[in-house]
Amino acid sequence: MPEIRKDPTSDRWVIIAPARAERPRDEFGGDPAAAARDCPFCEGREAATPGELAALRQNNTAHDEPGWTVRVVPNKFPALQIAKHSSGRLEGLHASIAGRGLHEVIVECPEHRIRVTELEHGQLNQVMEIYRQRMRAAAADPQLAAGMIFKNMGVLAGASLEHAHSQLLALPLVPELLQRELDQGRAHWETHQECLWCRLIQAELADGARIVSESAGFVALCPWAPRLPLETWIIPRRHASQFEDATDDELEQLGSLLHEVIHRIEQVSPEADPAYNYYIHSGPFDRQSGDHYHWHVEIVPRLAMTAGFEWGTGLFINPISSEVAAEALRQVTITEARQAAPRSADPTSP
Amino acid sequence: MPEIRKDPTSDRWVIIAPARAERPRDEFGGDPAAAARDCPFCEGREAATPGELAALRQNNTAHDEPGWTVRVVPNKFPALQIAKHSSGRLEGLHASIAGRGLHEVIVECPEHRIRVTELEHGQLNQVMEIYRQRMRAAAADPQLAAGMIFKNMGVLAGASLEHAHSQLLALPLVPELLQRELDQGRAHWETHQECLWCRLIQAELADGARIVSESAGFVALCPWAPRLPLETWIIPRRHASQFEDATDDELEQLGSLLHEVIHRIEQVSPEADPAYNYYIHSGPFDRQSGDHYHWHVEIVPRLAMTAGFEWGTGLFINPISSEVAAEALRQVTITEARQAAPRSADPTSP
Repeated sequence: MPEIRKDPTSDRWVIIAPARAERPRDEFGGDPAAAARDCPFCEGREAATPGELAALRQNNTAHDEPGWTVRVVPNKFPALQIAKHSSGRLEGLHASIAGRGLHEVIVECPEHRIRVTELEHGQLNQVMEIYRQRMRAAAADPQLAAGMIFKNMGVLAGASLEHAHSQLLALPLVPELLQRELDQGRAHWETHQECLWCRLIQAELADGARIVSESAGFVALCPWAPRLPLETWIIPRRHASQFEDATDDELEQLGSLLHEVIHRIEQVSPEADPAYNYYIHSGPFDRQSGDHYHWHVEIVPRLAMTAGFEWGTGLFINPISSEVAAEALRQVTITEARQAAPRSADPTSP
Repeated sequence: MPEIRKDPTSDRWVIIAPARAERPRDEFGGDPAAAARDCPFCEGREAATPGELAALRQNNTAHDEPGWTVRVVPNKFPALQIAKHSSGRLEGLHASIAGRGLHEVIVECPEHRIRVTELEHGQLNQVMEIYRQRMRAAAADPQLAAGMIFKNMGVLAGASLEHAHSQLLALPLVPELLQRELDQGRAHWETHQECLWCRLIQAELADGARIVSESAGFVALCPWAPRLPLETWIIPRRHASQFEDATDDELEQLGSLLHEVIHRIEQVSPEADPAYNYYIHSGPFDRQSGDHYHWHVEIVPRLAMTAGFEWGTGLFINPISSEVAAEALRQVTITEARQAAPRSADPTSP
């Protein structure tokens, strides 16, 4: 059973999950054909994963058989696990709680594709739909406090398998960075009687320097204080605390804009296949605690390594300001992103 | 001029430092002879760096000339800079302050050595002595709030040049992770009338499971909630808030124990040259704010990549518990560390 421990000197939680040490790793940059041959996420290899929790499927295809477009399975090497009984102690120097929760893998496509921007048009919308479905399922569990959907692209971003996938971890506590945003949102609401993110969108659109792209329902921008070069956030215009309340239309727009932003990052990055993470910040499952919150997606390209300074201080040093980053990302729009807009991408492209 | 920006949604500070984008990079894993030929930190190459701020030197050798054992120069690509006038705004969505401060490079040896464990016996003690000297100099600047000495070993730990070196960044604010430890230390002091770290050492020595090594003045242990595998802290037994108050004897012991712990980590690590960071957590320069603090060194091997979950939540997932890590690190003592104890290491060893 995993254990969630609290460091007494920094008040920081850490999940100790011995099962994670056993997980396999693709040889990134190795022979792609070999990786595809052994890949447990490819269509036809359904028996290589734990049984399916959900899938978007063609009519008349069976559970744990081919015929799916997006498939969700339990993580075989989970960081958190379902458990009936809780244990742990919350006081003293050595506080801990049981590592109770959900850890799921969302396989984003049946073919052995690696980059999101290689996916067929519309595929990412289906991924967003499954995200919403799984977040709703996690939110219904009264033992869980919050869910985090995240994606690791590339070995430098923590991926261990290359087949396009993302993950859901649902936790028995509200994680620190979400709690900080909840606190900031509440403080702003109490002082100004308005949502911090609604205000931020207004201010950023009025200024313009950090805007990357916008659509009817969303704004993509480089934040004022980006931790790493090209960090970009996608924020819905409509105020809503929970991602799982997004409408079908919003999910479709989010899929399109996420695809576009990742394409821009790939074009601007000095590397051909930049590593990145994205994650969805959504209000806690206890809705009463978060009406002042505003869900959004944060995309963090991993173009620079964190160093001792970051680990020791919690501050980041970023050589690229958000204005410079946004300008570069906007340039892609004009010359290339529009070209890619239909997104009937050649699946044989790198 | 660098700028320190505050993110309104997370209350997080980021240093935007465009000069950092210009810095050169060694080709790690490339031809070592080529890297040494171009290395700006090697003895005889003093003109390749900004003028020396301090050095430990043989008698009768001149400033910015050969003859030094440890040498300190300003960072040529600084994250913070000395400035007479401050600027910035601290209110509103887009708060910032001037990126005022010191950024120094401590070159740890005159020869082109990469690993600390390749250094001659006693060399690391001289590095500790120069650390103390530079922290004292930074603490005397009334414009600065705190100093952070840190080391990046290996490209995965954020190093851009391979010649053994560490850095000092002195900041106009108390960084977040130090402030959290100050807050935790103060709360413990107020509740229990004792220092949190003094108590921690007692409890850990009594338990024993997480102890790695100890000497007359220091204890090395794996913390209860380690962020990454093999994370190890070195804590002085004598209560003192500021590293710069360490005695000569303590510095010598710290150099020895740091060498020993890094040797253990290198032996246990699955990689031959594991990347790691270490940094010294020392109380703020305003001594009145931190008597309940207890300085220490934290060593963070970078054997695993942080992923989207860590970036999105602030929690870490670690597959190796501190008990398992400490046991493995202790084993090295018996079989190999003692052997290395005299540390008259063969400088030709890898």
